[in-house]
Amino acid sequence: MEKIPYKIYLTEDEMPKAWYNLRADMINKPAPLLNPGTHEPMKAEELAPVFCEELVKQELDNETAYFPIPEEVYNFYKMYRPSPLVRAYFLEKALGTPAKIYYKFEGNNTSGSHKLNSAIAQAYYAKKQGLKGVTTETGAGQWGTALSMACSYFDLDCKVYMVKVSYQQKPFRREVMRTYGASVTPSPSTSTEVGKRILEAHPGTTGSLGCAISEAVEVATTTPGYRYVLGSVLNQVLLHQSVIGLETEIALKKYGIKPDIVIGCAGGGSNLGGLIAPFMRDKIKGLADTRIIAVEPASCPSLTRGKYAYDFCDTGMVCPLAKMYTLGSNFIPSPNHAGGLRYHGMSSILSQLYDDGLMEAVTAVQTDVFRAAERFARVEGILPAPESSHAIKVAIDEALKCKETGEEKTIVFGLTGTGYFDMVAYESFHDGLMDDYIPTDDDLKASLSTLPVI
Amino acid sequence: MEKIPYKIYLTEDEMPKAWYNLRADMINKPAPLLNPGTHEPMKAEELAPVFCEELVKQELDNETAYFPIPEEVYNFYKMYRPSPLVRAYFLEKALGTPAKIYYKFEGNNTSGSHKLNSAIAQAYYAKKQGLKGVTTETGAGQWGTALSMACSYFDLDCKVYMVKVSYQQKPFRREVMRTYGASVTPSPSTSTEVGKRILEAHPGTTGSLGCAISEAVEVATTTPGYRYVLGSVLNQVLLHQSVIGLETEIALKKYGIKPDIVIGCAGGGSNLGGLIAPFMRDKIKGLADTRIIAVEPASCPSLTRGKYAYDFCDTGMVCPLAKMYTLGSNFIPSPNHAGGLRYHGMSSILSQLYDDGLMEAVTAVQTDVFRAAERFARVEGILPAPESSHAIKVAIDEALKCKETGEEKTIVFGLTGTGYFDMVAYESFHDGLMDDYIPTDDDLKASLSTLPVI
Repeated sequence: MEKIPYKIYLTEDEMPKAWYNLRADMINKPAPLLNPGTHEPMKAEELAPVFCEELVKQELDNETAYFPIPEEVYNFYKMYRPSPLVRAYFLEKALGTPAKIYYKFEGNNTSGSHKLNSAIAQAYYAKKQGLKGVTTETGAGQWGTALSMACSYFDLDCKVYMVKVSYQQKPFRREVMRTYGASVTPSPSTSTEVGKRILEAHPGTTGSLGCAISEAVEVATTTPGYRYVLGSVLNQVLLHQSVIGLETEIALKKYGIKPDIVIGCAGGGSNLGGLIAPFMRDKIKGLADTRIIAVEPASCPSLTRGKYAYDFCDTGMVCPLAKMYTLGSNFIPSPNHAGGLRYHGMSSILSQLYDDGLMEAVTAVQTDVFRAAERFARVEGILPAPESSHAIKVAIDEALKCKETGEEKTIVFGLTGTGYFDMVAYESFHDGLMDDYIPTDDDLKASLSTLPVI
Repeated sequence: MEKIPYKIYLTEDEMPKAWYNLRADMINKPAPLLNPGTHEPMKAEELAPVFCEELVKQELDNETAYFPIPEEVYNFYKMYRPSPLVRAYFLEKALGTPAKIYYKFEGNNTSGSHKLNSAIAQAYYAKKQGLKGVTTETGAGQWGTALSMACSYFDLDCKVYMVKVSYQQKPFRREVMRTYGASVTPSPSTSTEVGKRILEAHPGTTGSLGCAISEAVEVATTTPGYRYVLGSVLNQVLLHQSVIGLETEIALKKYGIKPDIVIGCAGGGSNLGGLIAPFMRDKIKGLADTRIIAVEPASCPSLTRGKYAYDFCDTGMVCPLAKMYTLGSNFIPSPNHAGGLRYHGMSSILSQLYDDGLMEAVTAVQTDVFRAAERFARVEGILPAPESSHAIKVAIDEALKCKETGEEKTIVFGLTGTGYFDMVAYESFHDGLMDDYIPTDDDLKASLSTLPVI
């Protein structure tokens, strides 16, 4: 067989021309968004004040399997895509495993992560609709940076609400966003009604994604010419992120490789949903028996310890209700948690797949995650983002199991981004100041008690 | 003609198998290093206490045109090489220029720059010689990070002396080096005799590369099992960095392209010397008439305002004398200078080529450099290092000249690295706090007055 290179790059011509909508092939479709007042499924016209028109269509469409990638977006993709599928020869050697490990590396762009794949699509549709700008939330800052880049490209205004703890931990992210012309506000802020309300109720809060979402949505719906865009959780985002999985599939097929295990980190689900899309399709169709593993932080365990129920997407309860694995919309992970993936809920698509038994989920505590990150950095030469390192941790675990059993399994994981802006977290790890706080059952009982009654 | 893709990637098989030694083809060879005591050319045995044996051979060899890349180094190169040659379609469009702009992007590795190309070679030879570890200096931190990665790979100890101003401006660089197991000391420090001497003479000094070199050399020569390694200036470094130019040449040849202008930033000369090597070879042989332009910061203008003379390589005057364009070994750029490229002298090879009229040199002030950086970031999607942005600035200038004249020139420049760790500098640029300090004639007269009499 042809020798597999360290990095498999597709040519530009081999890049996917359409996004793949996994919902079209799901037997049990993800549950629809509900109007928080009537508890009826949200209609397009109800979503239109919040989201761009084309994106509403993509959000609600459970039937169309492929959406052509608009030429303007495709051209932008060429700036930083195709991303390499890397054969982790160095890691395999260091582990002494017979497993074959591959990772799809999405960090080679200035946003530092896969988030740009959806940001440029959403900015494009906003521009096409003639909008002035968009608002959004960001946690670790990758999504905000990605959106800033995308908005700068299409000359759109960009207002970012950044989770306060990340704003403090990652001061330089703000400067990158500023380089791309965005405005960045730490959330919760006093610039919105919902922010004021949250600050009154929780004066010392370090913020959460759910809370930043509420602020961004308020600004979008009260400012003419603006809409809200979101970097994860939504169906439309997973649709755009399918480019990750599709490229991975094409690269593997070039060498006749079928993965045994596909692993991704899971916060809201954007990377995982995108990476696994074609592999899950084959699994649903009975064409493959791939194990698919979601890795979430033990400090924010929506799939493994949450409830599958309708919940608010945001702390301020201004958004539609989504059926998902959730910890409750007012769940806020410990401020000591440095590993990203802080959202209280999980993509409805992934929630349904998990509930259907098509996907596994495991948790990792953060010192284990950083240990895996450092090990990976030293042998593979890439400094991984803490989020991505959740997948590294479990990929290493699975590779070590292969070492015990002697099985030559093919493991593919998503390396979603780089950790250049996470050095405060790395420092606290090096200094032994990082802890492994896990929410207690009582913590979760309290946050789950706010679930709406449907 | 075949359409040129946004990114030209070589396959692993197309990667160069040997480094190219430009000295072999130079008519006027670079002047030899001199013993600071006798003023006689340094012999191999005199350099051996400072440098690894194989590296001494490479340093002194002006005849051998190609040095095979050792297999271990070649394997490591595959981790992050080949680097892409990017066609700057977006920048061309934004400028409205008929020029065709290409850049060789060396930033897609965790050291964030081209420095890894030589770091891994030098670490390899140190390991091969059975050493325990190496010492070095670093300015902006790219070289220190690169060396940390290389030493971690070969399990060598790594002691880094980091210019104090950079240590303060780039706290996170230290954490990256720590992730790779290196120790980092701000220079000047009290851990060496020369450091104490410099601190006594200049109590408030923010340090310089020349001063950090003195400290690193002292530690290497007084600690058994250690040698000193340097990230720029030396002939051996330019030899290793030729991989940049060779890959660029191969990528261009695939599409039948000959560059009209090749541009690189110039501090000590490692990137520039590597990038231009094959193009300069053709120019020397009369096979091409390529313009080759070195861009240096106006605040540290060794080629354009320095003197071509023998000088000390380091502030402590413990190193051999090198003939080079120099500002004097005690020259220290303004602490307000954020753009890297802070070394007082220039590679002997590049100095000779410049003196022979084979290369041009221009300066850029730092606000112009950051303006070019931001412009580039917004259209090409890469956040450039300040050092690299010197080349961007002049590439844009040349492209705009083409716009005036209508000439479709092919411009190639070196994008040596990313600016993720330079956000303090970007912030000061955004806040309008950055100035364009240029040394006065009196400043230079004072620093040049310390040149040794040969």
